[in-house]
Amino acid sequence: MESISHMRTRGMDMQQCIQNCLDCHRTCLETSIHCLGMGGEHASADHQRLLADCAQICLTSANFMIRESNFHKRTCGVCAEVCEACAKDCERLAGGDQHMIQCADMCKRCAESCRQMAA
Amino acid sequence: MESISHMRTRGMDMQQCIQNCLDCHRTCLETSIHCLGMGGEHASADHQRLLADCAQICLTSANFMIRESNFHKRTCGVCAEVCEACAKDCERLAGGDQHMIQCADMCKRCAESCRQMAA
Amino acid sequence: MESISHMRTRGMDMQQCIQNCLDCHRTCLETSIHCLGMGGEHASADHQRLLADCAQICLTSANFMIRESNFHKRTCGVCAEVCEACAKDCERLAGGDQHMIQCADMCKRCAESCRQMAA
Amino acid sequence: MESISHMRTRGMDMQQCIQNCLDCHRTCLETSIHCLGMGGEHASADHQRLLADCAQICLTSANFMIRESNFHKRTCGVCAEVCEACAKDCERLAGGDQHMIQCADMCKRCAESCRQMAA
Repeated sequence: MESISHMRTRGMDMQQCIQNCLDCHRTCLETSIHCLGMGGEHASADHQRLLADCAQICLTSANFMIRESNFHKRTCGVCAEVCEACAKDCERLAGGDQHMIQCADMCKRCAESCRQMAA
Repeated sequence: MESISHMRTRGMDMQQCIQNCLDCHRTCLETSIHCLGMGGEHASADHQRLLADCAQICLTSANFMIRESNFHKRTCGVCAEVCEACAKDCERLAGGDQHMIQCADMCKRCAESCRQMAA
Repeated sequence: MESISHMRTRGMDMQQCIQNCLDCHRTCLETSIHCLGMGGEHASADHQRLLADCAQICLTSANFMIRESNFHKRTCGVCAEVCEACAKDCERLAGGDQHMIQCADMCKRCAESCRQMAA
Repeated sequence: MESISHMRTRGMDMQQCIQNCLDCHRTCLETSIHCLGMGGEHASADHQRLLADCAQICLTSANFMIRESNFHKRTCGVCAEVCEACAKDCERLAGGDQHMIQCADMCKRCAESCRQMAA
């Protein structure tokens, strides 16, 4: 039964990763609008581009997993990198802003689960 | 306080509609792969097209609401129509298939909340 | 042969509308980054939201037409409205900026072909 | 002027790669509907999944390049792999079908330009 229990664990991990990717997609889009409202460096091309990259690769990775694609390891690998970069940029600009701190946390959580999927 | 409580209620409704749209996007993509595995009419262009339409307009409507776009009423109006058609087609083909019955239920729930948003 | 020639004409119109939508999707994403680089009102939530809305509904309408969906009239109707609003906002902010003038032109061309498809 | 001419060359390559990705996105969606109409193995989960993967990663890579993202090399790397796999599957199933042969050619062309971008 070890292999079946292992499969189930992997299955649970993937279900969680899909949900993390969809949640992170949503959070990055919300943060993008939030940051445009703040102006300054928050509305810079560099920060906005990272948020848009992160939202899109999260959705793409989620969909590859939902379709049970063999290539999901490859999209999750890229997703982990982008999420990590986005988390760092949100932390850099956060100050005490709760929305950006939560976005950084979400990106880190998504990066971690995508890294496991990519392994 | 009536207006504030009203605003909050609307806010809660929209939060729920966003989540319904994202959940319905995921469910329709899962159902698409599930139905391709079943073959026959489940793998027909007509049924697969509806599932793809539904997944895409649900994502689009979710993102318009996340961006707080004034046009979200228009995308939600289309989304309600597509979700309803998709629910009917899933019910028509479901037989006793639990996955398809759940997909039909999800589409109906999403159609209902999108209809409220579009009003 | 009238009906066939009519079908071909409609077919050509739709082919052109698909290409306009895909071109407008690309142009709005390019303009978004361009405007973030300019800063000020070009990087405001209102302008960036319109560009993001336009890019997304253009892609959605293109894909509905590519899939030969019966609902393409509905997505094209919304697309025409969003493209028109985006064209106006680009014109309002353009000054002599060639990129924004071209974006406004692209949005108007796409709005016109989507309006015909929606009819 | 060597560096500028080099930059221009790279710029032209990227412009071409963006267009290839958008064209390949469209072609794969068209082929998906075409193959569902043919039925049999053309409508199998394996073939349809590859077409959906290819359409989505092509769009994602196009958008990363349009946004001038530093991560475009990573998405283009995945895109080249998926396009190549999709080209092989279309060739395997093509028989004399002109649409599928053209789809395989488009995927190969896109794979080649994405491979150059990823380098």
